[in-house]
Amino acid sequence: MSLFKVVSSKLAAEIDQELMGPQVGFTLQQLMELAGFSVAQAVSREFPLDKASIDKHVFVIAGPGNNGGDGLVCARHLKLFGYNPIVYYPKRSERNEFYKQLVSQLNFFKVPILSQEGDSTDWLEYLKPESTLCIVDAIFGFSFKPPMREPFKGILTQLHELENQVPIVSVDVPSGWDVDEGPITEDAINPAVLVSLTVPKPCSNFLKRNTAHYVGGRFIPREFANKYGFEPFDYELTDQILKL
Amino acid sequence: MSLFKVVSSKLAAEIDQELMGPQVGFTLQQLMELAGFSVAQAVSREFPLDKASIDKHVFVIAGPGNNGGDGLVCARHLKLFGYNPIVYYPKRSERNEFYKQLVSQLNFFKVPILSQEGDSTDWLEYLKPESTLCIVDAIFGFSFKPPMREPFKGILTQLHELENQVPIVSVDVPSGWDVDEGPITEDAINPAVLVSLTVPKPCSNFLKRNTAHYVGGRFIPREFANKYGFEPFDYELTDQILKL
Repeated sequence: MSLFKVVSSKLAAEIDQELMGPQVGFTLQQLMELAGFSVAQAVSREFPLDKASIDKHVFVIAGPGNNGGDGLVCARHLKLFGYNPIVYYPKRSERNEFYKQLVSQLNFFKVPILSQEGDSTDWLEYLKPESTLCIVDAIFGFSFKPPMREPFKGILTQLHELENQVPIVSVDVPSGWDVDEGPITEDAINPAVLVSLTVPKPCSNFLKRNTAHYVGGRFIPREFANKYGFEPFDYELTDQILKL
Repeated sequence: MSLFKVVSSKLAAEIDQELMGPQVGFTLQQLMELAGFSVAQAVSREFPLDKASIDKHVFVIAGPGNNGGDGLVCARHLKLFGYNPIVYYPKRSERNEFYKQLVSQLNFFKVPILSQEGDSTDWLEYLKPESTLCIVDAIFGFSFKPPMREPFKGILTQLHELENQVPIVSVDVPSGWDVDEGPITEDAINPAVLVSLTVPKPCSNFLKRNTAHYVGGRFIPREFANKYGFEPFDYELTDQILKL
């Protein structure tokens, strides 16, 4: 693993704000499309499609915010790549019309979407280790602040119990971890793969040694990285991810 | 070259309308991001970065509509891939705030953008064959209808004169061609590369034999292709283009 620099949750929020501010003018839709695509590319790099994997599911768990949106986009690209994603989206965002459109797009691609009903753990019926290639954890991102609420608390406890049977791919931050301090609870999940978006956050320093760590979300100029105090990443050719 | 099916300009418009309609729910921003990315990937496949090419420019000409928007996105991704794009955007769209944001993004990446001033041909100063790797023709797409107006008529005449010295990469449709009938004027351009978006249009049957033809814009399910009467394309892995 090469050395890399991280930025704090505070700085990550500033970067996001600047990218979508009036000067730079990126839209959430653009950044989410590229971020979700990069996560899907990381999944395909780590879990190549072959005879053994093609019938398995990729179980994508989408949280209520932007991290969840990245997961919804990721699921669509995975389907296009030939995978069989299932999406579990227990708390659908109502504040933003675009999230509903991301759901419509998944319906268009015939990707099954499970919803939360009561305190049910029905979703676990669809997450059988023998038929699941990996879990995409798109629950919380860099703006997560404890305490964690249900149903996500229960979901993450389940994921922790499953993590030795089904590899977890976390988007940007392992959900439930403190963005700056790392795993702060005893039942914190241990992802097999982390895809840091734009630049790793401090919690990535607490990954286990055998976690595959990628950076994705290739959308900033080199000088912008320098301005925020990290080295730009040397992505190859048209790749949207780089293994660190 | 393998056999492939084409769809008429009328059907292409219907496909676009359905993709962005309430059922499917894609947004223009998403489709443009993926389309522009795919064109940038085709450029990098056809004109790999090496010691000879790295100092040259990719000259992107953006028209006033969505084809031009694809070109603006393409230029940004090319810059991220390590190329040196220059954008010529003579008639900027004022009807859509998003186009202004695409321009802001290019400013953020320090991609030079030339504007039209009078009937000037100043832009040709920046299009020297010896220092230009290729031209990206993102002037008109599948909704183009003659007659062609200035400044694009003059620009395309110039491109035709240059085409044996600098290869042209056309986005979706070679600009100035009739989408269904092909090249209808004597000074029609002959692209070295065509990137058809979603599915080739009938004019692609009139390409010269040595034109490299790609399909890009990977954003429809296989059944959707069948519904519109064409075979789905077998993209490899996470590729956003497929050479036909």
